[in-house]
Amino acid sequence: MSRGEAAATFFRGLQDDIVAALERADGSKFRQDEWERLGGGGGRSRVLADGGLFEKAGVNFSDVHGELRPEMAAALPGDGLRFRATGVSLVLHPRNPRVPTMHANVRHLERGSASWFGGGTDLTPYYVVSEDAVHFHRTLRDVCVLFDAGFYPRFKRWCDDYFFLPHRQEPRGVGGVFFDYLGVGAEDTAKQPRDPAFAAPAAIETDGERLFAFVRALGAAIMPAYLPIVERRRNEPWGEHERRWQLLRRGRYVEFNLIYDRGTLFGLKTDGRIESILMSLPPEVRWEYAFAPEPGSAEAASLAAICARRDWIDS
Amino acid sequence: MSRGEAAATFFRGLQDDIVAALERADGSKFRQDEWERLGGGGGRSRVLADGGLFEKAGVNFSDVHGELRPEMAAALPGDGLRFRATGVSLVLHPRNPRVPTMHANVRHLERGSASWFGGGTDLTPYYVVSEDAVHFHRTLRDVCVLFDAGFYPRFKRWCDDYFFLPHRQEPRGVGGVFFDYLGVGAEDTAKQPRDPAFAAPAAIETDGERLFAFVRALGAAIMPAYLPIVERRRNEPWGEHERRWQLLRRGRYVEFNLIYDRGTLFGLKTDGRIESILMSLPPEVRWEYAFAPEPGSAEAASLAAICARRDWIDS
Repeated sequence: MSRGEAAATFFRGLQDDIVAALERADGSKFRQDEWERLGGGGGRSRVLADGGLFEKAGVNFSDVHGELRPEMAAALPGDGLRFRATGVSLVLHPRNPRVPTMHANVRHLERGSASWFGGGTDLTPYYVVSEDAVHFHRTLRDVCVLFDAGFYPRFKRWCDDYFFLPHRQEPRGVGGVFFDYLGVGAEDTAKQPRDPAFAAPAAIETDGERLFAFVRALGAAIMPAYLPIVERRRNEPWGEHERRWQLLRRGRYVEFNLIYDRGTLFGLKTDGRIESILMSLPPEVRWEYAFAPEPGSAEAASLAAICARRDWIDS
Repeated sequence: MSRGEAAATFFRGLQDDIVAALERADGSKFRQDEWERLGGGGGRSRVLADGGLFEKAGVNFSDVHGELRPEMAAALPGDGLRFRATGVSLVLHPRNPRVPTMHANVRHLERGSASWFGGGTDLTPYYVVSEDAVHFHRTLRDVCVLFDAGFYPRFKRWCDDYFFLPHRQEPRGVGGVFFDYLGVGAEDTAKQPRDPAFAAPAAIETDGERLFAFVRALGAAIMPAYLPIVERRRNEPWGEHERRWQLLRRGRYVEFNLIYDRGTLFGLKTDGRIESILMSLPPEVRWEYAFAPEPGSAEAASLAAICARRDWIDS
């Protein structure tokens, strides 16, 4: 089995596992849509709306292939126009504003002779609780260190840099980890649009099997990183005041996904399935002109904590 | 007075006139924020929230200047990096889903030795009523024909092509008019990213004073094109069913503005004032996975009418 094939098999199973864990937490069932992509491949989108815990939760598996548009190809490692991309991505929007929104994605890309892994996960609390951010980061770090001592600090910073809204000068949330082009050969490094700070690949990055093992371990850590936070917060009370703040902050989520998110733009440019790509958008959102939280409020404190881009744990 | 100066003076007065007309229609007052742009110039943002008629209405005047970023400059006519941009833009989001959302913009740009006008206005009904679309288009056509017989058909088609969401294969609404680069010399034509269908400029386009007169006439027609529709629909009853459809359709509005709208992207890339740029976003929005209106419903009929991109009037 090729690595792409093996990755697709793993990701399909990972979607099953994550959905099962979320159904247990929520008490409701996901619906599933299987779909085919006109240009090649397809996927399974699973969505839960108006659940006990989640206002909207989407867990998507896809395994698509075909021809890249030339302008897309110019920005990617590898050669030729043929590509295959497989992965799982999820975005969870809880109803209770005390429970953070969470995103995760793990993927494998092949183009010509090049192949690589990418992915990441980040936490977007409406009300920042240090204990939760620490748990999230610690869980991710504990996976990273099993593979390379440099992974967590690099991928944490990469995440901070990626999930950032330049027009607001605001991070999206309290971060997590983010990485891309893991496994791409040095000869292709020049074409990688990654931050110069991360230009020196670690030794592990030439070992595709080890990288695949890392991605499997990270995939398995997504629910353990998130669900304990959910359990701690899901019964905390909230009202209209917290709801409004949540809806306004969800506006930032929409801005990030539609203006900057590479996964979203990749999907749109490769004629992906629109409903699956935009599954990440929150169910209900508000924009108010020139809204700012009251000085001294819990909302102002949360925004300040987000903007500080803290090191939540020792790396 | 330079044309840029004269245009800025006209646009400032146009903002006053439009806001006065909207305040009469709504019964509430706009708030005003005057702001300065760090790189040069500034503006006046006027916003009304939770009015009697409008859930959110924004009318922005700006007159900014400074240095273009090189990657922006590459896409614009003219020479050098110095630019000046002045204009009025408005987006009106009524509360009643029977009343259409409306956008309009008129602007004047200068870069080096080149200067040009751009603008347009388009109507986004949630429930399409032919009579309203006809009134909107007829009002615009009646202004256009005073200046050039070719303007309305060209600008109507340009609008249809511009306010289109490729990823949804849906127009944003029932259109209107849209134009750009009016007045740019033939020597600069090659750099104009306009549709080849509109590449042959009319004779009037070398006459900056006539073009300015056209933009003034169009600016003055914005409220007459829209307010009669508002008066016809504002007292029509609606409920939760119509509200949900409105919020879902507003999601399309957000998708267009954040993914495609050149004015929004221009603002973000020239370090514009974020709250003024994103004033166009609706106050409350929904995204539901794979939502489709019931076959045979009023919502399905409206969507079909929008997708048909009709010629609402003879041109």
